[in-house]
Amino acid sequence: MATQINPPRGMRDFLPADKRRRERVLATIRKVYASHGFDEIETPVVEDSERLHSGMGGDNEKLSFAVMRRGLEQADLQRAADADDALALSDLGLRFDLTVPLARYVATHRGTLPNVFRALQIGPVWRAERPQKGRYRQFVQCDIDILGEASSLAEAELLIAGADALGALGLHDCTFRVNDRRLLTALLDWSGFAAEQQSGALISVDKLDKIGVEGVTAELEQVDAAAAAKLRLALEGWAPVLAEGIPLSTESVLASLPEELRARPDAIAAAESLGGIADAVAAGGGGALVYDPTLVRGMGYYTGTIFEVAHPSSGSSVGGGGRYDGMIGRFLGQDVPACGFSIGFERIVDLVEERESAAEVAIIGLYDKRMPVDALVTLKASLMARGERVRLEARPKNARNLLERAAAEGFTHVAHLREEHLDDPHSITLEPLG
Amino acid sequence: MATQINPPRGMRDFLPADKRRRERVLATIRKVYASHGFDEIETPVVEDSERLHSGMGGDNEKLSFAVMRRGLEQADLQRAADADDALALSDLGLRFDLTVPLARYVATHRGTLPNVFRALQIGPVWRAERPQKGRYRQFVQCDIDILGEASSLAEAELLIAGADALGALGLHDCTFRVNDRRLLTALLDWSGFAAEQQSGALISVDKLDKIGVEGVTAELEQVDAAAAAKLRLALEGWAPVLAEGIPLSTESVLASLPEELRARPDAIAAAESLGGIADAVAAGGGGALVYDPTLVRGMGYYTGTIFEVAHPSSGSSVGGGGRYDGMIGRFLGQDVPACGFSIGFERIVDLVEERESAAEVAIIGLYDKRMPVDALVTLKASLMARGERVRLEARPKNARNLLERAAAEGFTHVAHLREEHLDDPHSITLEPLG
Repeated sequence: MATQINPPRGMRDFLPADKRRRERVLATIRKVYASHGFDEIETPVVEDSERLHSGMGGDNEKLSFAVMRRGLEQADLQRAADADDALALSDLGLRFDLTVPLARYVATHRGTLPNVFRALQIGPVWRAERPQKGRYRQFVQCDIDILGEASSLAEAELLIAGADALGALGLHDCTFRVNDRRLLTALLDWSGFAAEQQSGALISVDKLDKIGVEGVTAELEQVDAAAAAKLRLALEGWAPVLAEGIPLSTESVLASLPEELRARPDAIAAAESLGGIADAVAAGGGGALVYDPTLVRGMGYYTGTIFEVAHPSSGSSVGGGGRYDGMIGRFLGQDVPACGFSIGFERIVDLVEERESAAEVAIIGLYDKRMPVDALVTLKASLMARGERVRLEARPKNARNLLERAAAEGFTHVAHLREEHLDDPHSITLEPLG
Repeated sequence: MATQINPPRGMRDFLPADKRRRERVLATIRKVYASHGFDEIETPVVEDSERLHSGMGGDNEKLSFAVMRRGLEQADLQRAADADDALALSDLGLRFDLTVPLARYVATHRGTLPNVFRALQIGPVWRAERPQKGRYRQFVQCDIDILGEASSLAEAELLIAGADALGALGLHDCTFRVNDRRLLTALLDWSGFAAEQQSGALISVDKLDKIGVEGVTAELEQVDAAAAAKLRLALEGWAPVLAEGIPLSTESVLASLPEELRARPDAIAAAESLGGIADAVAAGGGGALVYDPTLVRGMGYYTGTIFEVAHPSSGSSVGGGGRYDGMIGRFLGQDVPACGFSIGFERIVDLVEERESAAEVAIIGLYDKRMPVDALVTLKASLMARGERVRLEARPKNARNLLERAAAEGFTHVAHLREEHLDDPHSITLEPLG
């Protein structure tokens, strides 16, 4: 049993240095978001199966880990076998995101939460994805959501807080790309796609950066050739916008649209909303937003503004979110406007530089094995008064390897402990490491 | 669907105030344990089923939540039904403690961990217990363990660090009760219980505080009447020791034993070990330990020192642990001495006083709904420079309820925001709340 003992497939252990960095990043995020008025909440990691499979999770529902009912009897197993229905044996599932639990939480506690609720959630989620580099079956999500705020104050506060959090982590070169689902809907509508074709058409448009205008048009010609041809004109018009990465404003949005669309009230409303958000985010210190007419974001539940954050050191987005006004109401029986922003924690945690607190004094106390235990703990206590972190280590024949490793672990000093130090612990010399 | 939407049975949501307190307690514990040289690690919340059901978890194994294999086919279900074996459908399970994952972690990473490894683990565990007051199906454990240290330096460091952590949380009135499994073994051996009877006999002795000497003796008479009678003498001799709560020392331990036992080398060794630990803990600032000859602690894996922490405000223990030298080796194929201490996080989190940081300025920014969004976020940014936490709230007709609630949430000031403040944000007055 001594070989090949690993964590479950696709999941990770964290060694001390990794764990320290993760906790440091989380502490920074918590502090920034709290300062912006977000309240942290927590829900259980499992939710009732029927809730997880109610259609709010899109494709992620298929990736959920099912927890078996306790006390299953032979008859239960036989019924499941007869119906070929494994899920009938499950009453709970590991959450695949933090949004479904948030919707359930708000429904459970609506009586005690403020009318406008700014929620922070940090926690692991699970998806049974095919394990591959950078994709894990357990990973941390880090979401802020504003529920109950219909105005674009929600978008502005989320984007300002998100930019502040990323900035506090030293990620200053982030680009916030923004779009509005209502613009995409207006465009598809104008092109001639019927309402029931539009979500499928969006999935094609979402591939624009991978398959290009030709590829998207080819896909959409299968749906409606005339509409695809009309849409193609708009897509071709975006090339210069995308190349330049133009600043978001009501004007830049309208200018990107086919001329006929610029007069449509829904397009104008969305353009004005986006321009207002850009002004507010700049006013609130969140920096300039970039307009990306091709931004779709996968989830079906978005209804308005959508955003995504890029960083030059990361191939994929380091954050994103948007408005999803319809979703919370499905649990609540009444509509609740909602908007959220999620930091891609697992991506940024590797971008954040390893910065042990510069001031930290971390001491290795080297001792001789013959020293009595009460002497050791007495000397340890006196070292703790002089540093933030103290680890005792028995002196090996050759201490060099041990001390090199300790330095790599962030220890800054070594103290050679001797019994005579008990008479005057201040006589212990701290030698710098490394 | 709007009524009775709750978290899964036996599990809890945390409202913002609860979550804040929990995170504050965890931050304190993390800081203290790090200063004592413990390195935090993290493992996935699930482990392979066979590992969870390998006998290391005692009764908790029966309470584990099983996760279903993905991609189950009808044939799998039929096989499980035929064998009446639900667990055959599961490949993973939610961990029921942090000790089994620690043992697996050490086996996985033994090449990169220091020889003596001081581990801190904080995380949720799951047990399908019958829901009842104070028992949850998901709860946080908070363990420190020292692996690779055979001497009682391990016990001393754990107890000193544990006392320091509880003290940092304001729980100064804790009593650390200590015993050694080897003393109990010597006692049962001397009484005449055969080796294979002893673990059963220990379960009876563990009930002493509930069923008394009469009850324990009655149970043990079923096993071996002569041994039960001999043991009874020892148990009766403990009454004064228990009543007085005598300080732990080699002498007090030996004095508590039947005279014949005091000469047995195993009893003497255990008494000397306990006395040494008491001296070391006192020397290292951990305070006085109390000797409790009746302390058993349930888990079968303890091999030496055992301890438990009582607090006057809690009916059950607020911490505990002990030495379990045999266990890690079962995964590793080589023996590793191990000793651990666990804070009863869910118990202490309610004992810790709600202490918002005294210096924190938390501001409600009351605004008129007609104010534009960019003005709001500009004023919010200027308030954030004057306080640690800012929440915008639209002014209702009667603001009193809102402000009372905000005060209860820890907000300290209210600012009445007006557009003219934009000209000079410093002119905003912060009025104290409550």
